[in-house]
Amino acid sequence: MILSALLTSVGINLGLCFLFFTLYSILRKQPGNFHVYAPRLVAEGKSQRTNHFNLDRLLPSAGWVTRAWQPSEEDLLSTSGLDAVVFMRIFIFSLRVFTFAGIIGVFILLPINYLGNQLSIDFSDLPNKSLDSFSISNVDNGSNRLWIHFSAAYVFTGVVCYLLYFEYSYISSKRIACFYSSKPQPHQFTILVSGIPVSSGSRVGESVESFFTKYHPSTYLSHTVVRRTNKLQGVIDDAEKLYRTLGHLKSKKHTQQRFRRDGFLGLSGRRVDLLDQYEKKLEDLEDNLRMEQSSLTGEEVRAAFVSFKSRFGATIALHIQQGIDPTEWVTERAPEPQDVYWPFFSASFLKRWICKLVVVVAYILLTVSFLIPVVIVQGLTHLDQLEVWFPFLRGVLTITFVSQVITGYLPSLILQLFLSLVPPIMIIFSSMQGYISFSKIQKSACTKMLWFTIWNIFFANVLSGSVLYQVNIILEPKEIPKILAEVVPAQLLNVFAPKYETGGKFWPIVHNSTIFSLVLMHIIAIGIFGLKKLPLASSLTIPLPVLTLLFNEFCRKRFLPIFRDYSAECLINKDREDQRDPTMVEFRDKLVTAYQDPALKPIQYSGSIGRLKSPLLHSAVA
Amino acid sequence: MILSALLTSVGINLGLCFLFFTLYSILRKQPGNFHVYAPRLVAEGKSQRTNHFNLDRLLPSAGWVTRAWQPSEEDLLSTSGLDAVVFMRIFIFSLRVFTFAGIIGVFILLPINYLGNQLSIDFSDLPNKSLDSFSISNVDNGSNRLWIHFSAAYVFTGVVCYLLYFEYSYISSKRIACFYSSKPQPHQFTILVSGIPVSSGSRVGESVESFFTKYHPSTYLSHTVVRRTNKLQGVIDDAEKLYRTLGHLKSKKHTQQRFRRDGFLGLSGRRVDLLDQYEKKLEDLEDNLRMEQSSLTGEEVRAAFVSFKSRFGATIALHIQQGIDPTEWVTERAPEPQDVYWPFFSASFLKRWICKLVVVVAYILLTVSFLIPVVIVQGLTHLDQLEVWFPFLRGVLTITFVSQVITGYLPSLILQLFLSLVPPIMIIFSSMQGYISFSKIQKSACTKMLWFTIWNIFFANVLSGSVLYQVNIILEPKEIPKILAEVVPAQLLNVFAPKYETGGKFWPIVHNSTIFSLVLMHIIAIGIFGLKKLPLASSLTIPLPVLTLLFNEFCRKRFLPIFRDYSAECLINKDREDQRDPTMVEFRDKLVTAYQDPALKPIQYSGSIGRLKSPLLHSAVA
Repeated sequence: MILSALLTSVGINLGLCFLFFTLYSILRKQPGNFHVYAPRLVAEGKSQRTNHFNLDRLLPSAGWVTRAWQPSEEDLLSTSGLDAVVFMRIFIFSLRVFTFAGIIGVFILLPINYLGNQLSIDFSDLPNKSLDSFSISNVDNGSNRLWIHFSAAYVFTGVVCYLLYFEYSYISSKRIACFYSSKPQPHQFTILVSGIPVSSGSRVGESVESFFTKYHPSTYLSHTVVRRTNKLQGVIDDAEKLYRTLGHLKSKKHTQQRFRRDGFLGLSGRRVDLLDQYEKKLEDLEDNLRMEQSSLTGEEVRAAFVSFKSRFGATIALHIQQGIDPTEWVTERAPEPQDVYWPFFSASFLKRWICKLVVVVAYILLTVSFLIPVVIVQGLTHLDQLEVWFPFLRGVLTITFVSQVITGYLPSLILQLFLSLVPPIMIIFSSMQGYISFSKIQKSACTKMLWFTIWNIFFANVLSGSVLYQVNIILEPKEIPKILAEVVPAQLLNVFAPKYETGGKFWPIVHNSTIFSLVLMHIIAIGIFGLKKLPLASSLTIPLPVLTLLFNEFCRKRFLPIFRDYSAECLINKDREDQRDPTMVEFRDKLVTAYQDPALKPIQYSGSIGRLKSPLLHSAVA
Repeated sequence: MILSALLTSVGINLGLCFLFFTLYSILRKQPGNFHVYAPRLVAEGKSQRTNHFNLDRLLPSAGWVTRAWQPSEEDLLSTSGLDAVVFMRIFIFSLRVFTFAGIIGVFILLPINYLGNQLSIDFSDLPNKSLDSFSISNVDNGSNRLWIHFSAAYVFTGVVCYLLYFEYSYISSKRIACFYSSKPQPHQFTILVSGIPVSSGSRVGESVESFFTKYHPSTYLSHTVVRRTNKLQGVIDDAEKLYRTLGHLKSKKHTQQRFRRDGFLGLSGRRVDLLDQYEKKLEDLEDNLRMEQSSLTGEEVRAAFVSFKSRFGATIALHIQQGIDPTEWVTERAPEPQDVYWPFFSASFLKRWICKLVVVVAYILLTVSFLIPVVIVQGLTHLDQLEVWFPFLRGVLTITFVSQVITGYLPSLILQLFLSLVPPIMIIFSSMQGYISFSKIQKSACTKMLWFTIWNIFFANVLSGSVLYQVNIILEPKEIPKILAEVVPAQLLNVFAPKYETGGKFWPIVHNSTIFSLVLMHIIAIGIFGLKKLPLASSLTIPLPVLTLLFNEFCRKRFLPIFRDYSAECLINKDREDQRDPTMVEFRDKLVTAYQDPALKPIQYSGSIGRLKSPLLHSAVA
């Protein structure tokens, strides 16, 4: 890639940024867009829908940027939960790291690289100069200037490790504070038990009841046996479609009636018949459903949500192997009730295992086959090669602007396009793996995506072409506004409604990825110093990855357990606090039914049609 | 190695075997050797010391072999514990595997290899034939006979996996049965807590007491704070030496007095003075010790053994992170009281960590540098090379017998010699690593030794010379009597007194090592089929390691947790059984003082001199 191509790319991106900024500034002020840009406020009834027109609505203004920076972390915590705060911390951390790296890179390393003579390039023609003259490959072999790069590696690693430690410690303390201030939640008191052994003649519920009353008499509260509800869910889906159609028809009829009352004549006799017919059908379906719900006794799955009277009681049952046979009475943390991925329960253990294996194989195949678009992209940066493949393009490619767009902008666009296809595939993979909650499916998909990205974008690029392509992405100025834009909390405050709360459990992933990147950087540095005929620097860099890994080990010992579980101290203190809380009796009553399959919840819609959300819809969606 | 050299080796070994068998048969019958061959019986007073001489005592007899096979596993369990039984099961398992491998190898694979023509060796001179003609390298390239080797790999893997599953399941059930029938033991009720935070002005004991009475009020029983006793232990060692000298002198004096009483004259006036002097010195030391013991308040270590009223209570505290900071209130399983390695407690956490790193580096250095003797041994099997190095040996080496001894026997002798030096070094390494019990030190040393052996004896041999050397060790007939001899329980029953009991926790190591060996075999097989121009067999072997690893994964899920911890079901059942046991009150009283540092136990020897074992000696040794 040559310098002018890079600048073209920067220009296009800056232009787009400015365009989107202006569009956003105007569009957000239009009342019709409130449900897009501030759905939370609309839902909470906080947005003032003023339909008065004024000129200000059409002028772009930047006031929202400053307002977006004003909310404190406490505001964010109270409205969007700890996950949102941690999410913000990740951006702040990244911003700090990239700022520091940018300063070192642009003001120290870049000039040094540029002053080297290793690559003999014509100085007069700067715009067409290869970007390589700004890279370390331009520094003379064996030059003492390489010691500055060496020092930079140490200083950068030190700063990043310090920032990592600071964030880990900060998020840990937030996590505990958040737990102490949280209201009692069903998932804190509940575990999912699977592999329940059932003696012939008895039922799963009886087995669960006798086991937990025997071994956890003082803490056991209740249980909910999981049932196979695939068919039922199908019927509910049908009923729901019918319900919506009916609701639609009724609202139409209502309007027509109003029109008629106002003096118009309607010809909706046939429509009223249809309505009655549908209503009859829906009632039948409802009866059917109730029948099915009550006759589901034979379709129990050998799994149950078991609730305890205290958090510590649930934690004891979770952490200590319950049955003698480790494949029986398998316990795992219960997800939040609305986070349960019910379809999982219809698959048997063996089926889940095979699915897992299939997913692993499919994932590997996808990751490897993604090299194909990467190779195509690499081809685009080598225009001459492209001309050989597609001779008819020769005429177009000679135009400077076209060739610059193709080498500078098109590659990353194509790559982004292909990359955007991958996350949905990863979610499908993860949901096949037998996770019991949406959050776990998403987390697993994210991990898959992370490794996919590391492998494909980094390694494949390194192996198949120049490293600079990647460095370029990191150092490009266009990234700074992008990061800035993403950091803006307005989006989190007004748009983001958390579906579930992990308590910042994803921070360790960020930590590990950063450590991985650091060590990778060290290994590359060792290699580069070797190639640059400075073996002493190469050897002296070896302690750096070792120290980094030791630091990581320390962090694992010091902080990671806090993200896995809450300690006995935390749990017992919180439990004792609850004992003084008069609302706990009510909470426990709710807890008993918290983990009921939505397909089994009582349904009622005859007569409810007309409201915005029926109890059925509500229970099926929640 | 040529065939005649192998036969010479076999001959020497068989001769030695017979010699030792005869010697053992005679020596074990001599009354003076009872304390060597049956120390347990002597200690338990079960051996009848008959000094009557009869001719039978001088004749070798084989009756003990049949007697040795008679004791059932139940006998072994009751006298030597579960570890001894598992130890036996390992030998039985190995015997089964090697018998099966031997039958396949000798009766199927060996003839097929021998009938091949790949290596053109002179058939007339069988004794000087290279052993390679019995190996797979003699089978013709691309020959269909290789499919027999292929089938053998599958059949052998299947049989070994079946045996592994059977043993794992058998030992698991034994382990649980053994736990149910065990008497209450202090280590089942106790955990070791380290990293105890102490607020300024208060003491470790107070901190422990307040924490556990707050968070485990219903199950907490007592605690014993660990103290720094290095100096004290030094004083005790001195006192002990003095005590032994004194005891020796007294017994001499006693004999002399008897002699004098019988009419002899003694000149032991000076000796009596010396005795009094020593006794005075000992008494002073004793006073000193008592002073030191009582003034140890300032030398507390931030660690304590915490005992609970029930096993389940201890397990809860063990499995659930106690403090908010994971580096504080760190819990681990307490070893048996007599198994505690007290010197560990004198090292700080940081010191232990550095020691660990140093040990890892030293271990790697040792493992790598052991290649030197291996290379020397490899040199011995190539006599011509030896003659070049040491020309003066040429005369001796031309004698056939000498050269056969050197190539056939000397290599393994030298290797064994060097190998025998390694275990003590490994134990030193492991004791530096900061383990809290002798059993853990030994286990860690064994693991180190295992990897050392795998790396050095196997890989180094494969890399530096012929694989046959190793195969030879496995298939040599001399090994069969050796295995037989080791299997004989007589040794366990009469000689082995278990110092501690792991409950068969070492079986998973055997399991993993076997799986590792199988997969290694598969990889070698894939390589060999490739070299032998049978790529189809090579590809069809690939599922074998995959299936083996899946089998291992299943075993890990099904059995390994049983070896890690006892389940809640087990623990609670056992605890409830105890509640009905009237001796539990007494046991709990003992439990409170079970984990007292021997250096701090009350000492008393003035007046006790003359008995075989003083209370001091007893407490210091136990």
